[in-house]
Amino acid sequence: MSFTTKDFTRRMERALSQAAGAGLTGVLVTPGPDLVYFLGYQPTAITERITMLVLDADHDPHLIVPVLERPDAEAAPGAAAVTITDWADGSDPYAATARLLDPQGRYALSDSAWAMHLLGLQDALRETRYTSITGSLPMLRAVKDTDELDRLAAAGAAADAAYEQITTVRFSGRTERDVGTELAGLLREHGHSQVDFTVVGSGPNGANPHHEMADRVIAEGDMVVLDFGGLKDGYGSDTTRTVHVGEPTAEEREVFELVKAAQQAGFEAVQPGVACQDIDRAARRVITGGGYGEYFIHRTGHGIGLTTHEPPYMVEGERQPLVPGMCFSIEPGIYLPGRFGVRIEDIVTVTENAGRRLNNTSHDLRIVA
Amino acid sequence: MSFTTKDFTRRMERALSQAAGAGLTGVLVTPGPDLVYFLGYQPTAITERITMLVLDADHDPHLIVPVLERPDAEAAPGAAAVTITDWADGSDPYAATARLLDPQGRYALSDSAWAMHLLGLQDALRETRYTSITGSLPMLRAVKDTDELDRLAAAGAAADAAYEQITTVRFSGRTERDVGTELAGLLREHGHSQVDFTVVGSGPNGANPHHEMADRVIAEGDMVVLDFGGLKDGYGSDTTRTVHVGEPTAEEREVFELVKAAQQAGFEAVQPGVACQDIDRAARRVITGGGYGEYFIHRTGHGIGLTTHEPPYMVEGERQPLVPGMCFSIEPGIYLPGRFGVRIEDIVTVTENAGRRLNNTSHDLRIVA
Repeated sequence: MSFTTKDFTRRMERALSQAAGAGLTGVLVTPGPDLVYFLGYQPTAITERITMLVLDADHDPHLIVPVLERPDAEAAPGAAAVTITDWADGSDPYAATARLLDPQGRYALSDSAWAMHLLGLQDALRETRYTSITGSLPMLRAVKDTDELDRLAAAGAAADAAYEQITTVRFSGRTERDVGTELAGLLREHGHSQVDFTVVGSGPNGANPHHEMADRVIAEGDMVVLDFGGLKDGYGSDTTRTVHVGEPTAEEREVFELVKAAQQAGFEAVQPGVACQDIDRAARRVITGGGYGEYFIHRTGHGIGLTTHEPPYMVEGERQPLVPGMCFSIEPGIYLPGRFGVRIEDIVTVTENAGRRLNNTSHDLRIVA
Repeated sequence: MSFTTKDFTRRMERALSQAAGAGLTGVLVTPGPDLVYFLGYQPTAITERITMLVLDADHDPHLIVPVLERPDAEAAPGAAAVTITDWADGSDPYAATARLLDPQGRYALSDSAWAMHLLGLQDALRETRYTSITGSLPMLRAVKDTDELDRLAAAGAAADAAYEQITTVRFSGRTERDVGTELAGLLREHGHSQVDFTVVGSGPNGANPHHEMADRVIAEGDMVVLDFGGLKDGYGSDTTRTVHVGEPTAEEREVFELVKAAQQAGFEAVQPGVACQDIDRAARRVITGGGYGEYFIHRTGHGIGLTTHEPPYMVEGERQPLVPGMCFSIEPGIYLPGRFGVRIEDIVTVTENAGRRLNNTSHDLRIVA
């Protein structure tokens, strides 16, 4: 179940072919999900010491690392696919890295590369140009291969199992933090090695889409947004369900049903060739049509893979067409400030002719105790 | 024990005064330790959505955030010290951020700002220039105020207490991972909210300075490098001691004593006005003099504060003079490939006329079971 040198080499070749298609000399990869993708390599910490994988069509792939991290780099799953060079403390790391680059080159660079490193390279090579890797090669990690899809499906199933269990426990009288901690434990029990977030947004806290959890005590009559995810076997989960403690009011039910219909509309719009922004539009149309447009204050979705948040984004202005193998969230919501929020989110992958959900728990409003 | 609006405002003023001294228009701060320093604000996640604090002499400080993170930003400890503006998904975040900048300006930028954001700003404003915040304002977070020193001392004392406990447990016959996990638990017991690393480098693994821990079973006769740290009350600990399972050989003892003497020499070199590189030289001279110079393969130390790894660096070429209130590690080591390693590390702060250790456990070679 682990990736091979052949997998890594194939990914590098695909990146170079996409780079050539975008008129680029090559690709510069720094620690984070991009480097995991190409080499399975994750330094102990991402620090001020530069580590960079240099991919270009004219040379074999080179990885430059701080000398004291060389043993770790040599032990990386993809080490056999690259030549490793190093630099030592006290020497100029940008001069050493610049020697691997074409001074006239134009490179795609990992989004989360440190600005400090980019500035160092810009100083060392005045003519070289850089561009965001997701801006210039948006499909690089967005389209998943079969192994990756299997892992994402397994992560989704694990998140679903955690949701089924958490809805059987008591909510009323407990703090959000207490319920969230239990939910995080369930994610780990179901095989997550890392929990990235467990949002428990009860009552008015649910109206802040990025609220995580607080010491608010959940009470009878609360809507509660549960949005949780993390990594299982290296790949991400991210799902949201909104539950209600006891019976909802007519207004709460109306808002809930609108979000549910919007999620369904977004899902039904999925097919190859449709622009990402059309998924956003399909979901938003339902909410706007219901009179709540101003309360849907975020984009409809984001890609998922080695991270829980990555391109492609389902947002107005994103004309990128959907391609089979893409995976992303569809997560419309309505947020009534000071009152409550509702969000429903599934991870969806694009098949040859439609969408397929990787989260499969019911969308009906679940009543919890 | 929490910082006030006045603290945050004073820090911003100090930054602007240092920026002016460096010929800069202002300072651009992104999520991470810099933003914690200026506002106590830490978004739930650091993502592709830009958040930036803009400090310049001609305007009040502005924080631009994604609209859906606005409630979190408004709840930050330093929120009262800034004007908050936002941008929404689907709009151009770089155009919105660029409106807060001087198109002819020259700004210090957080080292770990995403390259993607820097590229976006460079595209939006062709004449603006950027420089690394630690390169241009190296003393910004390096010199700690009294509250910060108290927290660093408390973090150091907690790490020391964890060390005293871990050396009473059995090492022989257990895996590095097992001992490291126990050590991490002790750090948490002593008040660490976050454990950043627990190196347990036994026998040949100790010869890789960035080895963390593995499934190697520790055996009688092993040198074991223990290097551990994390955050307590927001500030970092980082200390290393090397212990031995049973009696050491004459060679092991010789190497150990050399490292111990090097650490002491580095410590005794500390006083205001001495260049950072002189701390490195003082420690290195001892090891080189003992014939092991080629096996001391990293710089002698790094600053510590809101992170466990930050400027100033005790490294050849760093001419920055020491200033009272600076805090950094002194951690010489000798690494004999395939055999064993020794490292001894204390955090040290600069007083009016010398150094003061924030780690105070014995430097003698401790024999463990």
